[in-house]
This record gives sequence, structure tokens and C-alpha cells, in this order.
Amino acid sequence: MNDFVLSSRKWRLTCLGICQMQHEGGKTMDFVVIGGDAAGMSAASRAKRNRPDIRVTVIEKTHDVSYSACGMPYNIADPSRPMEDLVVREADAFRKQGIAVWTGHQATCIDRTAKTVSGRTSDGSSFSVSYDALLIATGASPIVPDIPGLDLPGVMVLKHLEDGRRIKYFIRDADVKRAVIVGMGYIAMEMCEALCERHIHVSMIKPGPGLLPWMDQQLSGVVQQELEARGVALYPGVRILGVEPVEKGLIVHGEGVDIEADMIIVAVGVQPNSGIAVKAGLEIGPHQAISTDDRLRTSDPHIYAAGDCADAVHAVTGQRVWIPLALRANRAGWAVADNVCGKPVPLPGIVGTAVFRVLGLEVARTGLTVQEAETAGFQPVSGVIQSRSRAHAHPGASQIWVQMVADQKSGRLLGAQMVGREGAAHRINAVAVALHNRMTVEDFSRTDLAYAPPFGPVWDPLLTAANQLLKKIAQ
Amino acid sequence: MNDFVLSSRKWRLTCLGICQMQHEGGKTMDFVVIGGDAAGMSAASRAKRNRPDIRVTVIEKTHDVSYSACGMPYNIADPSRPMEDLVVREADAFRKQGIAVWTGHQATCIDRTAKTVSGRTSDGSSFSVSYDALLIATGASPIVPDIPGLDLPGVMVLKHLEDGRRIKYFIRDADVKRAVIVGMGYIAMEMCEALCERHIHVSMIKPGPGLLPWMDQQLSGVVQQELEARGVALYPGVRILGVEPVEKGLIVHGEGVDIEADMIIVAVGVQPNSGIAVKAGLEIGPHQAISTDDRLRTSDPHIYAAGDCADAVHAVTGQRVWIPLALRANRAGWAVADNVCGKPVPLPGIVGTAVFRVLGLEVARTGLTVQEAETAGFQPVSGVIQSRSRAHAHPGASQIWVQMVADQKSGRLLGAQMVGREGAAHRINAVAVALHNRMTVEDFSRTDLAYAPPFGPVWDPLLTAANQLLKKIAQ
Repeated sequence: MNDFVLSSRKWRLTCLGICQMQHEGGKTMDFVVIGGDAAGMSAASRAKRNRPDIRVTVIEKTHDVSYSACGMPYNIADPSRPMEDLVVREADAFRKQGIAVWTGHQATCIDRTAKTVSGRTSDGSSFSVSYDALLIATGASPIVPDIPGLDLPGVMVLKHLEDGRRIKYFIRDADVKRAVIVGMGYIAMEMCEALCERHIHVSMIKPGPGLLPWMDQQLSGVVQQELEARGVALYPGVRILGVEPVEKGLIVHGEGVDIEADMIIVAVGVQPNSGIAVKAGLEIGPHQAISTDDRLRTSDPHIYAAGDCADAVHAVTGQRVWIPLALRANRAGWAVADNVCGKPVPLPGIVGTAVFRVLGLEVARTGLTVQEAETAGFQPVSGVIQSRSRAHAHPGASQIWVQMVADQKSGRLLGAQMVGREGAAHRINAVAVALHNRMTVEDFSRTDLAYAPPFGPVWDPLLTAANQLLKKIAQ
Repeated sequence: MNDFVLSSRKWRLTCLGICQMQHEGGKTMDFVVIGGDAAGMSAASRAKRNRPDIRVTVIEKTHDVSYSACGMPYNIADPSRPMEDLVVREADAFRKQGIAVWTGHQATCIDRTAKTVSGRTSDGSSFSVSYDALLIATGASPIVPDIPGLDLPGVMVLKHLEDGRRIKYFIRDADVKRAVIVGMGYIAMEMCEALCERHIHVSMIKPGPGLLPWMDQQLSGVVQQELEARGVALYPGVRILGVEPVEKGLIVHGEGVDIEADMIIVAVGVQPNSGIAVKAGLEIGPHQAISTDDRLRTSDPHIYAAGDCADAVHAVTGQRVWIPLALRANRAGWAVADNVCGKPVPLPGIVGTAVFRVLGLEVARTGLTVQEAETAGFQPVSGVIQSRSRAHAHPGASQIWVQMVADQKSGRLLGAQMVGREGAAHRINAVAVALHNRMTVEDFSRTDLAYAPPFGPVWDPLLTAANQLLKKIAQ
């Protein structure tokens, strides 16, 4: 901590010292950012705030910057809200801050020797820009499986704001009544909820086994029941043979089942947009994400990577992983800005905390699953408990399920999952903080968590889970 | 952790070894518990489960054991629910388990030389019982200030289940329309909510300055506004001269104000029931609570104390404190049982996490206030931020306030307070876990907390608070 206090106090000195030394005694430093969403715009904006003398240029292939991509399903759920509600800050606001924001510019090539980025604009002309420091924040793209017919009109993905607009207009214009969602992950679940709120009948299909396969089966069973109770048709483990147009709409041919739909959403996952980095010869890590060190530098010290295209260290395993999530993207963007501006602050790892809502349920996870723990070399032991969201005899209580994973040998807490109608989303954070601190289940079981009857039992469900898991560890 | 695993595995061996050795090779061990609520019944039940051969006797002065005292305000709020809903487990259920439960027995004297507890029953006869191990779990009593008229009919406190019944019957029988609550702490707030739900007009009065004086003023201002918006009349800083009966009901004479009421609830705080321990010459700690070590032993190694009558170590300061809360009482009861049964597991400290709901607000705290930090020798620096309970542009979001306290010198996180319509109660636990781990604000600001639009902004309000506080620490 003292180091940080000192380095903060030396901030201006360091900037004026190291950075300007690096950039030939006075030449304006060029910080170029490829990608104008969470990581990119966080980095651009913070760099400019840190050091107004830096020239910051953002290259964005779409016409939207800085929007809440995660908010799209909820926006689609409400026909009265324009998609523009999700724009956090307009491009012009960044421009007024002194940042050059080039929308409609697709970066295609990094010349690491000349230190330039080149590409094409949406009107077909080419561009090139020099950098002293470069950030690749190109995000991730939806995976579209190689299935015949997924290029038909009415088949859509959800990634950019433009995708959200397209889906929303299509629902209105084609008067969508039946939708098929290919996939059963986070985005698939959130889209399922959104479409249900629009009174669209939803079928969900995926070739792999079970919905939310990373989840403990007892917990994913709760989610499955909720979906089915709300009339969602689930087809897990069904291979998709193809999609064809029919007289009105489309038909999904699954193995043993045909599903008619007015619209198909493909949400089987995303992959990092690391092509430009591969082409430039940068080191690539897990899942083809761009390898970074704890200061977000790629294998080229002048090039950083952050957000959904970059990897990170998992604080539980110490291994490099690719878990594309919004908070990390924003935080990594800030860290890049600080590092570019001469404040060498290392960014610690992630623990993979994620939450989503589907219909009436909150679903949350952090840390490792049993399988991930096994792969990482732990001796996982896990348990599921069922508790209540409010105290004994408190009206309105609902059930809450917690799965907790630990290492049998060391007693260390490795991860948790939760499902419930209330109280799952924020509760998971207590476990996340415990994971960052490498707590044992025993130490966690003795933490002083909040209690009042409207918010949980005296023994918080997390503590009950820890107490039960302790018994298994001791066996 | 390994120690724990080992000691658990050696459990039966240890019990059969140490304990029976201590008790003259086979004589049945007598474990006597004074007080039959959270700490007492937790200890009694766990001791009997741990070792069925132990003779366990519980001495309880009222006729109720094992009930959710914290649930009483919510029960009073609902005229249709019997107070018996709050009984977690009937005395007879404990008796069936083999525990002697003596209700209507008031313990008055501990003879440490003879190792006996004696007292009087509710029908006037006397009793005496021998112990090998004794637990004092006498709880706390409401403080009734020395003000003329507080002994009048219609003036009540809320502590035992019998108090709850009395208040509930009184509201019904006296057709209460106006109530005065003396005090503005947790219980006062919860009773205020309960009475408002019964459509009773509430006035709250206290001689000390401000409501919730431990709270940051900006945050307590939010609570004050909420109370006033709901029609609650607040009289902070008003000395109470006396209470008198009037033709219909009572009148509270405050300095400069007279308030008529049908009922008065006195909720100015509680004090530990340590009289029996004082009389027995046991060491007494902060606020007259019974001093205990990390195994819950008093200054007499054969006598334990747990629950609202006992002190604890504050994990942030390392100092002994008296913070009577339900989770600690239950947990300390368990720890006593384990220690009595020969499993010497030390119980770590508390961080003072507490939460309550008042009308539409969740109010939570953990760790130290600025003043407590100062008293403990830290150099406190603090900040308040205002954030939102849901993401940018997500419908239904409300404001959420976080105050965070740190030590300027070390950067260590010392405490937090939160107020909001949603998302404050469970969020506080992340800070509680951080405090147990002595995290710096910087390390906490980098934790991987959950994000999805229905549950908060990308930067959780706690992270925003940490980020802002970091700037102050660096100054």
C-alpha cells in the first residue's frame, strides 16, 4: 500500500520524467486504441484525464462507442425504450474531451516496426495512424456454428448495439410470436427472459448436454424448472441439422425435432477478436485470446490488450484464462491508461464472478467449478445446501441454493454457485472477496455476515454452505 | 486448516480421552446453561449432538426458549400472525433430544467453589444444580432510562417473546392509533416500520443528537428523509422530562414539546445481563459485558459466556468490544459446545456487521466508523459516494449511498456503511469479508465483483466507493 501511496504522490513527476524521456523530450505521445467499447473507451478517457498532453485516437469499426452491451436484452424486452438509452457517452462527448474518435474505421493491420495501424473506413477509403503506445480492445464476436441456413434473414446474433437494434426492429416489423434461441448460456438466458417479456414463445436448443453445463446439476435443475414453468421449450443435447425458410418464417431441423420460428437468435458463445494480433505476430493465449502480462502488455511492450479480446490470470489457480466480462474490461482499460501514462500499477487477477437473471431467478457464480478445480490440480470436494432468502417465519421467503467447492487437502475455498428468487446476485460477492484472499472454508465459515429477518436467516446461506462443506472436508 | 482436519478426525478420541479423564473416569459430565435463547440453546443442542453422554441442563427464566427475537417487529406488523410463529424449536423438542429444559427458572447465584448454580422458580421454590462446565448466556436487557412515568401501563420494551405478545395484544385491545418510540436505534427503527404498517402514527424522540448517530450524516439524512416522507415525527436532541397518563392514553413531556400517544415503546438500547457474573466475581469487560477469551471462557476456566451478555474481539482493532448480535450469539453457542466437549477451537473476532430495514430502506454497516477508527488509533479518511442499484438505463434503479472508511497511513479498509432501497443488505458482506482479511482499499478496489444490469452498475457501488477513497488516501 505504501508503495501505491508513494507512486501516486510521485505521479506527475513520474509522468513528466519517464514518459517524456521515452518520447524524445517533448514530442507529443500518440496513444492509439483499436475498439471503442468498454475497455477501449475507458482507456482512452482515463489516459486523456491523466495526461491531457497525450494524443489519443480511437479506431472503432461500428458507429457506436461506449454503450452498455449487457443492457441490450433488457432494452429489447421493452418496446417503448430506444436502443440509444444504452449509450453511456456519445462519441462527440469524447471528442470534446480532446479524444479523436474515428467511428466507421476498421483496423486491419498493425505494423510493429513502423508502429502504425492501418485499415479501411466504411466508405472504402484507407487510413493509417502512428502510435507510441497501442491498445488492442477489439472485444469478442459471437460464434456462429457451421450449420446450413444460419445466414438466412431472421437469424441474428447479439453483440453490437447494431445487432440489438436489428433484433428489436425485426420483432416489431415481422410481428415475431415464436423464437428459437440456439444456445443456453448467459446471453441465451437473458434473451430468453427478454423475449418472454415480449410474450414471444421461446424454444431453446443446443447440441451439448444440459443447460448451463458448468453448473451443479441440482442448481441447473432449478433453472430448468423455472424455464419450463414459464412455457419455454428446452431441447438440450439436440444436434441442429439446418435452418430452412418456410412459408411464414423459418424452421429449425433438430435431430428428432422440427421447430418453427419467426426469428432465431444464435447465442452459443463468443470468441476473442484476436485476428489482428495473430497477424501482427503477438503471443496468443487460452481460447485464442491475446496474451497479456499483469500490466496488460502483450508480447510487444508497446502494445497492450484489454477487454474481451485479452486473457487474464485466474486468482484462484494462478493460470491464464479467458473469461470475457464487463467489469474486467473497464478495469483493464483503466490499468492500460495508467501504464501508458507511466504509472506502472500491476492489475491482479480475476476470480470469474458472474451473475445473470432469468425470468424469476438470480443465478450467480464465482471461482472454480468442481471440474475446473480438478483440471487445476486441486482435490475438489463440494456440497449443495438449500436455505431460505429470509429468516425463519418471515413472510415472502423463497428458497435459495448454494453449491460450494473446496480443496480437500488444504481446506481452501475454491468457488461457489447460487440460485434463488432473491438474494443470490449480491451474496456471491462475499465469496468472490474470500477467493481473492485465498480463504479456507473454515475461515470463511466464521465471517461476520449481516443478519436481519427480511434479508436472510441468522446463518446466511453462504455460512450454512460453508458449515456443511466443512464436515465433508473433515471426513 | 490441517489442524482442524486433524482435530476433527481425532474428535471422538479426544472426547473420550480428555473429557472423561477430567470427569473422574466415567462420571457423567454436567453441562449447565443459564439462558435459553440463541447462544444458550445453540450450545445445549450442539453439545448433546456432539456427545450424547453429557447431561445438559438449561435454566431459563421465561417460559419461551429458542425463538427469533429479531423477528418480533415483523410479527407485530402483521396482526394475523401468532407470536408463536417465531418459535424456532419448542422446549419439548429439546427435551426429546435429552436436554433438561427448566423454563420458569431464574438463576440467581453461581457458587464457583461448589460448582453449583442456584435460584428460584416462577412459583417461588428454590433450586440448585451442579455443573462441571457452565455457560452464562443470559443475554441483554433493554435499558429503561430513569424518567418519571416509564412504569405506567402502555409503556413497553421489546426483548422477550412475552414483550412482543404484550405489545401486540395492547395494540389490539387499546386500539392504538398513536405511538411514541423513545430511541432511534436498530430496534426503534424496526418497530417504527412495524407500527407504520399497522397504520399507527409514530413519533420518535431521543435526548441525544441526531438519529443513528454512528452513521455518516449524509447517509443518516437519507434515513431521516424517508421517515419524514412516511409521516413519522422525529424529535432528536429532545430531553424527555416525563410521561403522564391523560384521559385517553399517555402524554410524553419533552423539552419544548408534548406528544400524546396510546402506547410508548422504549428502545434506547440494551445492556448485558452480567449481574450474576459480577456477583460470582468473574472478570467484566467493555460495557459491563462478561470478559471471554477466544474459546469463550470467562476468567473461571469452568465457566463460559456467550451471546449478548459476553464480549468479543473486534477483528479490525484487535480490541475487546461488546456488540450484541444474533449471528455471533449462535456461533459462540456452538463454539462453547465444541470447547466443552473437548474440541478446543478458537473463535475469531467479529467485524460488527449489521443491517436493518426501515420502511423502504435497507441500512447496513460493517467495521469501524470514523470516530471508532480514531479512537482505535487509526488515521481515518472517509468518503461518501452515491451510485445506483441497477445499471445505466436499467429500469427501476434507485439511489444507493456508500460511506467507506480507511486508514490514511496503511491504506487499510476499516469499515463501510450503506443506505438504499435495494442492494445494500447483502452488498455489505463483501466488505465484511474484506475486513476479516485486513484488505487495503486498493486491493478491495480490484476485487472481481458480480455485474449484470438488473443488479448494479458495471462498477459496483462498493468499487466506486473504494476507487474514490483511494484518491483521498493518495493525497
